[in-house]
Amino acid sequence: MYFINTLSSALIVISAVWTTSVIGVEQVSINSLPAVNPVKQPWIWPLPQHWDRGQKTLDASHIGFDYSHHNSILSKAIKRYTDDIFYLKDDYPMVPYNWSTTDSKITGQLRTVKIILDNADDTKLDLDTDESYELTIPSGNKARATLKAKNVYGALHGLETLSQIIQWSPENRRHLIPNAPWSIKDKPKYAYRGLLMDTSRHYYPLEDIKKTIETMAWNKMNAFHWHMLDSTSFPYESKAYPELSKKGAYSPKHVYSAEDLAEIVQFAKERGVRVIPEIEAPGHSTSWGYGIPEIVSCRDKVPYFGYTVQPPSGQLNIASNKTKEVVHAIVDEFVDIFPDSFFHASGDEVVYDCWSNDTEIAKYLKDNDMTVQELFSDFVLEMQDYIRSKNRTVIAWQESVLEYNLTLPKNTVIQTWDGSDGVKGATEKGYRTIVSSNNYWYLDVGFGKPRSNPYPDVAGAGFNHWNRMYSYDMRANLTSSEIELIIGGEAAVFGELIDHTNFESRIWPRASTVAHVLWSGYENPEGEKLTSEDAILRLFPWRERMLLRGTMASPLNQGFCTRNPLDCFQPPE
Amino acid sequence: MYFINTLSSALIVISAVWTTSVIGVEQVSINSLPAVNPVKQPWIWPLPQHWDRGQKTLDASHIGFDYSHHNSILSKAIKRYTDDIFYLKDDYPMVPYNWSTTDSKITGQLRTVKIILDNADDTKLDLDTDESYELTIPSGNKARATLKAKNVYGALHGLETLSQIIQWSPENRRHLIPNAPWSIKDKPKYAYRGLLMDTSRHYYPLEDIKKTIETMAWNKMNAFHWHMLDSTSFPYESKAYPELSKKGAYSPKHVYSAEDLAEIVQFAKERGVRVIPEIEAPGHSTSWGYGIPEIVSCRDKVPYFGYTVQPPSGQLNIASNKTKEVVHAIVDEFVDIFPDSFFHASGDEVVYDCWSNDTEIAKYLKDNDMTVQELFSDFVLEMQDYIRSKNRTVIAWQESVLEYNLTLPKNTVIQTWDGSDGVKGATEKGYRTIVSSNNYWYLDVGFGKPRSNPYPDVAGAGFNHWNRMYSYDMRANLTSSEIELIIGGEAAVFGELIDHTNFESRIWPRASTVAHVLWSGYENPEGEKLTSEDAILRLFPWRERMLLRGTMASPLNQGFCTRNPLDCFQPPE
Repeated sequence: MYFINTLSSALIVISAVWTTSVIGVEQVSINSLPAVNPVKQPWIWPLPQHWDRGQKTLDASHIGFDYSHHNSILSKAIKRYTDDIFYLKDDYPMVPYNWSTTDSKITGQLRTVKIILDNADDTKLDLDTDESYELTIPSGNKARATLKAKNVYGALHGLETLSQIIQWSPENRRHLIPNAPWSIKDKPKYAYRGLLMDTSRHYYPLEDIKKTIETMAWNKMNAFHWHMLDSTSFPYESKAYPELSKKGAYSPKHVYSAEDLAEIVQFAKERGVRVIPEIEAPGHSTSWGYGIPEIVSCRDKVPYFGYTVQPPSGQLNIASNKTKEVVHAIVDEFVDIFPDSFFHASGDEVVYDCWSNDTEIAKYLKDNDMTVQELFSDFVLEMQDYIRSKNRTVIAWQESVLEYNLTLPKNTVIQTWDGSDGVKGATEKGYRTIVSSNNYWYLDVGFGKPRSNPYPDVAGAGFNHWNRMYSYDMRANLTSSEIELIIGGEAAVFGELIDHTNFESRIWPRASTVAHVLWSGYENPEGEKLTSEDAILRLFPWRERMLLRGTMASPLNQGFCTRNPLDCFQPPE
Repeated sequence: MYFINTLSSALIVISAVWTTSVIGVEQVSINSLPAVNPVKQPWIWPLPQHWDRGQKTLDASHIGFDYSHHNSILSKAIKRYTDDIFYLKDDYPMVPYNWSTTDSKITGQLRTVKIILDNADDTKLDLDTDESYELTIPSGNKARATLKAKNVYGALHGLETLSQIIQWSPENRRHLIPNAPWSIKDKPKYAYRGLLMDTSRHYYPLEDIKKTIETMAWNKMNAFHWHMLDSTSFPYESKAYPELSKKGAYSPKHVYSAEDLAEIVQFAKERGVRVIPEIEAPGHSTSWGYGIPEIVSCRDKVPYFGYTVQPPSGQLNIASNKTKEVVHAIVDEFVDIFPDSFFHASGDEVVYDCWSNDTEIAKYLKDNDMTVQELFSDFVLEMQDYIRSKNRTVIAWQESVLEYNLTLPKNTVIQTWDGSDGVKGATEKGYRTIVSSNNYWYLDVGFGKPRSNPYPDVAGAGFNHWNRMYSYDMRANLTSSEIELIIGGEAAVFGELIDHTNFESRIWPRASTVAHVLWSGYENPEGEKLTSEDAILRLFPWRERMLLRGTMASPLNQGFCTRNPLDCFQPPE
C-alpha cells in the first residue's frame, strides 16, 4: 500500500550495486512515517515550458563544467552552485527521494555539463533580454549534458533547473539525477517577475536583502523593486543632502550608503535580477522633512486624520523649488547607482487637504490661480519628465492614471495594486502594466489594520494564502490586446508588520507561487490549465529545497501532508 | 517640540558627571529620527499590581545579590539574569532610554539586592503556589534593594521585574535604573497562565521548545501545555511501545526521548513554568496506528471526508483492549516524566462514523447492545479515571461536557476553545475552566483553511491581532460565581501552518498580551480599566526588549510607531 515498500525493495537492489560505499552505513529507516508523493510533473519550480524525461538514474556526485566563455557572472554562478547548492544533503528529508518514476538502479554518471552561449558579453538585463535556455542530459554511462542559452542570464536559469533535478539520496549516500534522459526547453511567459520590498517602515540589513534576492533568483524572479523611501524613515545616505538620512533615518545604523546600494545591484545582477529603485513622492514623504523641513507640508499633524492615509502625515511641498531641487538630486544619485532602464516614480496615495491647509501652498495657488490638483499634476509630470530625461522608463502606481487622471506618455508602465480592477483600467487606457493586485499578490495583508487606534477589535481578514496567489489570473476580463500589455507582475511586501524577524517566512513560499504564474504561465504547451492540485505536489518539495538552502520558507500544511499530499488534498464529497 | 531636545540637554549634564567614562566615546546622534514615547505606566510587562516610583536615577552597572538560601533554582536564575539579561546593550535602540520622567543626573548606585524567601524549599508549582513578590529599590547613594517572596517562584518573577527596570543608556555607556525609588507589590490575577505548543503536526528541536519556555517565563507565564501527539506524527519514544515512534514519527531525527522530556521539565521548572502533557485520544490519533495498526480505526481512509475533521483519518479503536493497554502504558510513562498535578486527557473532535464503519467495532456494539456514543463515553471515562488513579487532575477539552455531555468529576478542568461561548457553558456547569477561545486567543488562525482541497480560493480570515487578544474579556456574560471558576487561560499555537521557520514570530509578542491579561487582569488597583491605548505604549518597548534577548518577536507596527506611538495611535475623528 505504501511507497515505503517500494523503497525497501529498491534499497536492496542498490545496496548490491554500491556495496563499497554502503558498507559501514547504518541501514536505518530514514522516513519512519510512510510517504507517498506521486510525481506527475518534474519537481522543478517554476515548471519549464517544455520537458521530456526518461526512467534512468544517473550518479551526479561530481559534475564538471565545460565552457570557453569569459564571463564572470557565469563562472561565479558555477562556483556558487557547485560550492553551495548542488551538493546539499538532508538525511532525514520530509520529502523522500522519488523512486516511483525512475530506475532504482544507477546506470551512469553525469560527468560534464557543456555550456554554450550565443553571446557571452555582459548583456543588460531588460524586458527584451532573452532568458531562454535548453538543457539536455543524456542517460549514457558517462553522460555529457548540454546547456545552451542566448546569454548568461538564460544560463543562470539553466543552472538553477539543473540544481533542482539533482537529488540527494540518503539510501545511496550520494547525489543522483532521476528520470534521465532529460530534455528541457524553457523560457519565461512574462518578462517582468518582481518582488517589492519596503526598507523605510522597517530597516533590513544588507544580508537580508541579499538573501531575498538570492531566493528570488532560485524562483526565476528577475526584478527587485526597492521601495526604499517612505514617510517613516529615510535610510538613503544622499551625498548631496546628507541631512536627509542623518535626521530622517532611524539611527546611524539604519542607513544605506551609495556603496551599499551598488553592492546590492551587483549582487543582484550576478543572479539575473534587476534592481528598480522607487522614489516615493510626493505622498508618503514625511521622513524627508526631518532633514529639510521646508520641503514637507503638513508634517506630523496631530491628529493625522484627513492629512494622510497612514501616519505620520507629511507630503512633499509641491509648491517649493527647493523640493524639486532635492528630488532631482536624489534622482541623479539613483540614476548613477541603479543602471536599470526602469525607474519607479511612485505618485500614489496623496491627500490634497495636506496641501490645501498649508498656508504657503494656499498662497501659491491663489497667486497663480491654480487648483491643488493642477499643482500636484505639474509636480508629478515634471518629476517623471526629469526621470525620463535620464533615459529611464518611468513606472507609476495606478492612481496616476486611474484616480488622478494624468495623461502620461504611452511608454510609461503602470503598476496596479488597489484591487484587481486596476489591471483592466490601466490596460484599457493602453498602458503597459505590472500587476500586483493587493487582494491576491500582497504578502503583507491579513493581520489587522495597524493604522487604526490602536487596532480595530475585529479579527484581521484578507490574508492571501498560497493557492489564492497561485490561482489568480491576471488576464481576467481583459481583451487579447489588453492582455498583451501585461509585462509581468510583482508580489509586494510592504513593511507595516514585517521586519527582519518575520519577512522571510512571510515572503516564502507564497511569492514562489507568483514566480510560477509569471514564468510558467497558466497553461502547459498542450493548452491544458496548470492546476493548484498539481502545483501543491511540487510546491511541497520546492519549499523543502528552499529550506535546505537556508531560506526560512514557512510550512504549507502539516508535515504529514508534505509526505502525503494526496491524503490531505482530496476532492470534496 | 521633540524629545530629542530634552535628550541633548540631558546629555550635557551627564557628560559632566561621568567625564571619566565619557572621554573617548564619540558623541553621535543615537536616535536620528525623533522619539516620543511618554511613559504613563512603568515599562514592565505584564504590569505589576501595585507600584510606586520616583524621579531619581541610579547606576546599575554592577548589581550583587545577597541571600542565604540554598536553592539551586534561585542561584541559577541569578546567574542567568546576571550573565545573559541584565547587561544587554543596544546602542541604536528603536525605543530610546526614557529621560522624560526621571532625573537626568545619576544620583546613586544600586549595589545589592537582598533576597528573602519565606520558604526556600523546593516548592511544587501548582495552582496554589504563591507567586507573589515585593521589590523595593531605594534611591540612596549606595542603594540596597530588597526582593521578598514566599518561595523561589515569586523570586523569579521579582528578578524578571528588576531586569525590566534596568535600562542601557547609550549616551552614558552604562546601565541605569530610572525612576527610583521603586516599590512594587505584585502577584498574578490568574493562577494558570499557559501556552499550548503542538509538536505533532511539525516537529520542533528541544532548543526551540526551551526558547519558547524561556520567553514565557519573561512574560510571567507559568504553564507549558505540550500537545505532543496528534494524527500526523508520533514523536514520543515510548519505552513500552517503541514501534509507535519508530514507525509513526517523521523520522528517527524527529523524536523526543523520555530523557529529552525530563530535560524540558527541569528547564521549565527552573523558570517557574510547569509542563502539562496532553495525550490526544481517542480522536486525532492516526499516528498511533503506524506502529500498532490494530489500535486505530478508519486509518487513512481516502477520501477522508466523513471520517475526520482533518486529514489523515484515524481514531483510537475504542473497542479494543489492546488500545487501553497502550494508552495506559503511555499514561504511566508520562506520569513518570511529568510531575505536574495536571494531565490533559484531550477528548476532542471525534467523528462517530469512523467507528460505526469499522466492522470490528460494529460487531462489538451489536454483541454488547451498545451505541457508539456509549462506547466512546466509556473509553473516555475509563482513560480519565486511569489518569486520576495516578493522582493527577484531569483537563479535558470542552466537547467532553458541552458536546458529548459526559458527566465528569467536578475537580476536572475544562479547557474551552471553540468560540467564546464555551466559557459560559463550562462554568455554568460548575467546572473550573482554562480559557483559550479560538476567536481571540488562537495564534495559528487567519491563514486560510489548509484542510481544504488544496485551499479555498478565498482570502483567509480570522487572524487575532494583538489588540483583539489584549482586549478579550474572558468574563463576558458570566455571573460572579462563574467568573470564580476561571483558573486562567492559554494562548494556543496549533501547528498546521507553523514550524521552526515561523513559530517564534507568530507567538510573540501576541502571546504577551494574553500573559498580560492573565497576570495583570483587567483593572488597576483603583478599579480603572487597563486600556489598549496604554498597553501599546508599553508593549512596543517590551517587544524591543524581547528582541534584544534574542526572541524573534514580530513588529507591532511601523518602526516610526515604535518611536512615536502617540503619532500613530490617535483617537479617530
